[in-house]
Amino acid sequence: MISDGSKMTGLMLQNGKLEVQTDLHLPQPPDKEVLVKVRMAGVCETDLQLVQGYMNYEGILGHEFVGVPATGKFAGRRVAADINCCTLEHCPYCPENRHHCPRRSVIGILNRPGAFAEYLSVPEENLYVVPESISDERAVFIEPLAAAFQVLEQTDISENSHVVVLGDGRLGYLTAQVVALTGAKLLVVGKHTEKLRRFQDRKIETVSLENLERTRSSDFVIDCTGSVTGLPLALQLVRPQGTIVMKTTVAEPYQIDLSQVIIDELKVIGSRCGPFPRAIDALSKTKSK
Amino acid sequence: MISDGSKMTGLMLQNGKLEVQTDLHLPQPPDKEVLVKVRMAGVCETDLQLVQGYMNYEGILGHEFVGVPATGKFAGRRVAADINCCTLEHCPYCPENRHHCPRRSVIGILNRPGAFAEYLSVPEENLYVVPESISDERAVFIEPLAAAFQVLEQTDISENSHVVVLGDGRLGYLTAQVVALTGAKLLVVGKHTEKLRRFQDRKIETVSLENLERTRSSDFVIDCTGSVTGLPLALQLVRPQGTIVMKTTVAEPYQIDLSQVIIDELKVIGSRCGPFPRAIDALSKTKSK
Repeated sequence: MISDGSKMTGLMLQNGKLEVQTDLHLPQPPDKEVLVKVRMAGVCETDLQLVQGYMNYEGILGHEFVGVPATGKFAGRRVAADINCCTLEHCPYCPENRHHCPRRSVIGILNRPGAFAEYLSVPEENLYVVPESISDERAVFIEPLAAAFQVLEQTDISENSHVVVLGDGRLGYLTAQVVALTGAKLLVVGKHTEKLRRFQDRKIETVSLENLERTRSSDFVIDCTGSVTGLPLALQLVRPQGTIVMKTTVAEPYQIDLSQVIIDELKVIGSRCGPFPRAIDALSKTKSK
Repeated sequence: MISDGSKMTGLMLQNGKLEVQTDLHLPQPPDKEVLVKVRMAGVCETDLQLVQGYMNYEGILGHEFVGVPATGKFAGRRVAADINCCTLEHCPYCPENRHHCPRRSVIGILNRPGAFAEYLSVPEENLYVVPESISDERAVFIEPLAAAFQVLEQTDISENSHVVVLGDGRLGYLTAQVVALTGAKLLVVGKHTEKLRRFQDRKIETVSLENLERTRSSDFVIDCTGSVTGLPLALQLVRPQGTIVMKTTVAEPYQIDLSQVIIDELKVIGSRCGPFPRAIDALSKTKSK
């Protein structure tokens, strides 16, 4: 146990600047929370957007991590954490709808310090034990992988579906692998030859943006580009009455013609955080590559 | 029967201008189509947008009408017509998905002359007999009322739903009445005291835009404004994981921040043409007011 008054090191975002600070107060977990020692943390596109001013967040960044609680029922075991937190008594939203609780805090994103530090405080009910078979290096992907699985929670993608994933970045990579589990006919569109090769290594069909044939024939188009160009491109690929899943946030207003959504009776679905158990289960069953 | 070479009068949209022309050729119905004498036609917001250049349509306007076929199995009876037409043999889309057939023509909107004329040619399979109990004045509303019913085909709005309809124009008026049939808790938002009174006369709750409380609490928000202000307002009213139905087309690109769609995991659904039988059934059961 760490004594009161101890200091720790963390990466702070303040006044739009990132700074490593070595004299940060150690978190004092309130009721229902535990102190977690961080073993490893991942950097998300959202972190980069937060640095650009998204959500007006100030504080310690980081929301993808694996750590070890100092106290509580998981003390000494490795855990990952759902980032949406609410510990209010008798909250009408929680725990079922904690991801959308209007009173929630979000680790490293909204009103709660993140994991780019030696320690953070986390509600115990947000913790999930990481099986021994999943290394730290893979465990930091549990949070974004859960977000990728959320697409399957929200849609009826099946082996009969034609699915396009836009974006060859990390979330596109995770989402494509999750979609591939359904047996759907899958195509990934990207700009980077090197990154697309990683998909090909996993037997996932890819096409470079410049060679993409733009026909409105896909049942589902999942935008993982994080770019203002994602949705207009999705509109060129989705079939009438098809579904566009907006998986990445574009943190700025932009100009777009949405008349096709009405004419073609499209569904546009926003998709954010997902089920940790599904992600942990999948990671424990698949091998690193 | 009208002899070949006859002329008729119609309202033409050409080079961005509307003109009444008295020497138009009478339509010569091809195979599977019949000549329909127009009894009455309605003006739709879409007509006004077509005049502004929407769809680059040129020709006779008008797609909401009641008429009498000169030939075929409905000869001499009053009919309304589904506006999405395809008479190709063995079309893989039709008739089930005719509303989204890529080869379709649309009466008075796309590659097919409309009903603001004495006669038009319509595929016989598009015709629906209008019961005697529905006057011509009400029958011209069958097409837009069917479009309003499409909202119920696409959603699971029920008596437990909180629904907001944005817009006190004609489509808002029809849509609100259709939603009211479900027993949902319904609120209509509009700008025009006179128009809102018509809703109140039908026991539908209303609020003026200036007095609207903007809380994110509605299960469904249906945008019938036809304005670029509709979607941003809907985003202020829909609850997390709720549904926005885009019922009216905005025929121009506009600036919008869609990040809330992702954060709140919203569904945005485009909605266009609907089921004629449901509209005819509803009109035959309700009284004019």
